[in-house]
Amino acid sequence: MSAIAPDLAGLLARRVASAGPALMRAGAAGAAGVIPLTYGFPDPGSFPVAEVTEATRAALAARPGDALQYGPIAGAVPLLELLVAKLAGEGIRATPENLLVTAGGSQGIDIVTHLVIDPGDAMLVEAPTFIGALQTFRNAEARIFEVPLDPHGLDVDALESRLASLAADGIRPKLLYTIPTFQNPAGVTLSAERRPRLVELARRHRFLILEDDAYSELRFDGEPLPSLYSLDPEGHVVQVRTFSKILAAGLRLGYVVAPAVLHSRLLQLKVDVGTSPFGSHVAATYASDGASLTGRLDAHIVRLRAIYRERRDAMMGALEEFAPDGVTWTVPSGGFFTWVTLPAGLDAVELLPAARAAGVDYIPGPSYFAAGGGSRHVRLAFSFLPPTDLIEGVRRLMGVVAQVRR
Amino acid sequence: MSAIAPDLAGLLARRVASAGPALMRAGAAGAAGVIPLTYGFPDPGSFPVAEVTEATRAALAARPGDALQYGPIAGAVPLLELLVAKLAGEGIRATPENLLVTAGGSQGIDIVTHLVIDPGDAMLVEAPTFIGALQTFRNAEARIFEVPLDPHGLDVDALESRLASLAADGIRPKLLYTIPTFQNPAGVTLSAERRPRLVELARRHRFLILEDDAYSELRFDGEPLPSLYSLDPEGHVVQVRTFSKILAAGLRLGYVVAPAVLHSRLLQLKVDVGTSPFGSHVAATYASDGASLTGRLDAHIVRLRAIYRERRDAMMGALEEFAPDGVTWTVPSGGFFTWVTLPAGLDAVELLPAARAAGVDYIPGPSYFAAGGGSRHVRLAFSFLPPTDLIEGVRRLMGVVAQVRR
Repeated sequence: MSAIAPDLAGLLARRVASAGPALMRAGAAGAAGVIPLTYGFPDPGSFPVAEVTEATRAALAARPGDALQYGPIAGAVPLLELLVAKLAGEGIRATPENLLVTAGGSQGIDIVTHLVIDPGDAMLVEAPTFIGALQTFRNAEARIFEVPLDPHGLDVDALESRLASLAADGIRPKLLYTIPTFQNPAGVTLSAERRPRLVELARRHRFLILEDDAYSELRFDGEPLPSLYSLDPEGHVVQVRTFSKILAAGLRLGYVVAPAVLHSRLLQLKVDVGTSPFGSHVAATYASDGASLTGRLDAHIVRLRAIYRERRDAMMGALEEFAPDGVTWTVPSGGFFTWVTLPAGLDAVELLPAARAAGVDYIPGPSYFAAGGGSRHVRLAFSFLPPTDLIEGVRRLMGVVAQVRR
Repeated sequence: MSAIAPDLAGLLARRVASAGPALMRAGAAGAAGVIPLTYGFPDPGSFPVAEVTEATRAALAARPGDALQYGPIAGAVPLLELLVAKLAGEGIRATPENLLVTAGGSQGIDIVTHLVIDPGDAMLVEAPTFIGALQTFRNAEARIFEVPLDPHGLDVDALESRLASLAADGIRPKLLYTIPTFQNPAGVTLSAERRPRLVELARRHRFLILEDDAYSELRFDGEPLPSLYSLDPEGHVVQVRTFSKILAAGLRLGYVVAPAVLHSRLLQLKVDVGTSPFGSHVAATYASDGASLTGRLDAHIVRLRAIYRERRDAMMGALEEFAPDGVTWTVPSGGFFTWVTLPAGLDAVELLPAARAAGVDYIPGPSYFAAGGGSRHVRLAFSFLPPTDLIEGVRRLMGVVAQVRR
């Protein structure tokens, strides 16, 4: 970046004057010949192109004056109706007063963060956690404290200890950000037993849980678990969700599910005059099969589960086959990611140039930690590439790991 | 709104705990039989429905994996290319390093505000000014100071005095928000003579100008004036613009034009993972006529000017015909609005129930002032309704004014 002239530099807000460089999301393609196991992009082959084209035609024919006009700030009516039906199918009784359509899940995270965080306020995140959320929390000048994960998700005992030690220091966190199901980046899922305990801690210690539920619909194995929001629907949980993983990331459609008492406050922070009515009408039109508001979308999600299950299996199989001793990884029951731990003494940041030279790319662990550390870890995404590429990518990466160990 | 339980209320950030209720943008329809001269919605009959349908089909056929996938945070490549060409046509040399695609102009205002404003920082706004921008500035906890408008736009002499008196109090504003051309709500335009003076004041007093240029393409009379950004392209001006008024508000597409040194800082604040690639590819595909990247859009803007000129003329004619003595109004050379001043002793807020009962609706002046006041004023939008409705609406409103004066 060019240098900033002193008088412009003096105008910058603290958050941009002091923070590191922006998160640059590179294109998924990367360098030629390099297999990107990096970003959590959905499978482009899964996009229902013909159906979205037809849905656009139908939506613009039926309601051009709504789809191309300003719409309600909380969301276009047909999309809110779809969401009410979709949530009802999951056992969540929501009304439009519980809903806010957002630009992807990320805008939901941003708005909920600004709902509660004043500069300097304390909050809790999982370690590791989603890079984009960390950037949002830093922009909000939150004081970020970490809680570790284990194979059963957020370590609720560690959280309880953390709350106690923070309280002893006079620090009361206002917000806890968690991705309980098929966590990004770790691929782990909060156990059924821990879920009510976590909600109870929020009630007792009076913090808000920001539940990022981007991946739960993409479950490959086992039975669905209740969301945190469903355990406390008008209480201490706000959920952010997205169509990015179940329909098309390019629509940039997400939504917030929140206690109704927070609705007008959330609207106050939604200063973009509403999320795309165009995209919203297209998505709602797409989702319905005529018999049910969610019928076509539901069927599509079933297809997506099969696609991503096959990719998960391919990556797991390749890790089994190619990983040298000392490498471990999580086995996700859904979602887009596995979290690899390198043998002691190896550093994922230092390894990256050799990996790229060998034709594979990944994001090293430290990006996912608020307080640094995590350099033995690697996030691998299995969502974007077909199984053959995933297998070859893992083979290359594990070849580099084996070579460096020798 | 339902009451907030004490423990949730205690979690709210200052900005939502203390601020007034959210700006609720009602649907444009309003009560049956009432003519809404309220919101600045574009003419729904102007939306190029068939062309947008075809552009969607073409964009999804040509680049489904881009239009439906995550894209660059700064904006989808074809839309950035369109913007570079469009700005070049206006004499502005911009590269992608000067550009950020946003969710309408409003997200641009939000991001630029957060680029410079820490809670408590001072800034300047026009009095009156855009309601949505005021909400953004309040959310950012800016200290807002007003500068008056006159028929030639922002009163630059008054600004200079204001800067001096603030400096005497040790207050240095970091940002000035202005809509220099076809101002919302006042309908006035900053004169050619004042424009370089305003930029010079920004240089001298080291504040950033946030130039909201939502309406300049919709000029009915006279020659285009240079934008503030064009007078100081790598200096102290950031411009926010939108496709909402020249193509379709429902796409929620806008953009920021800024000095390149600010680009990475703007990206840091753009935490929604990019504005809709879907809408962006559709807009870029729509805009091109094959020969020029902006050809079809340019031709559409020419048609829009004719539509809104006719509406402006209808409203001006009706005001001439029906306004009682003592009522004055601005004569806009473009844009969507006129600003009506009622006779002394009348109050636009108090008048509103009678107006609605008489079948016409409007937004009273005080909403547009950071510090209150303005109750003799009424904003009338001529963008949304056909001429016959505009004339009838003005006839009804002026009937009420005449009746109350008696």
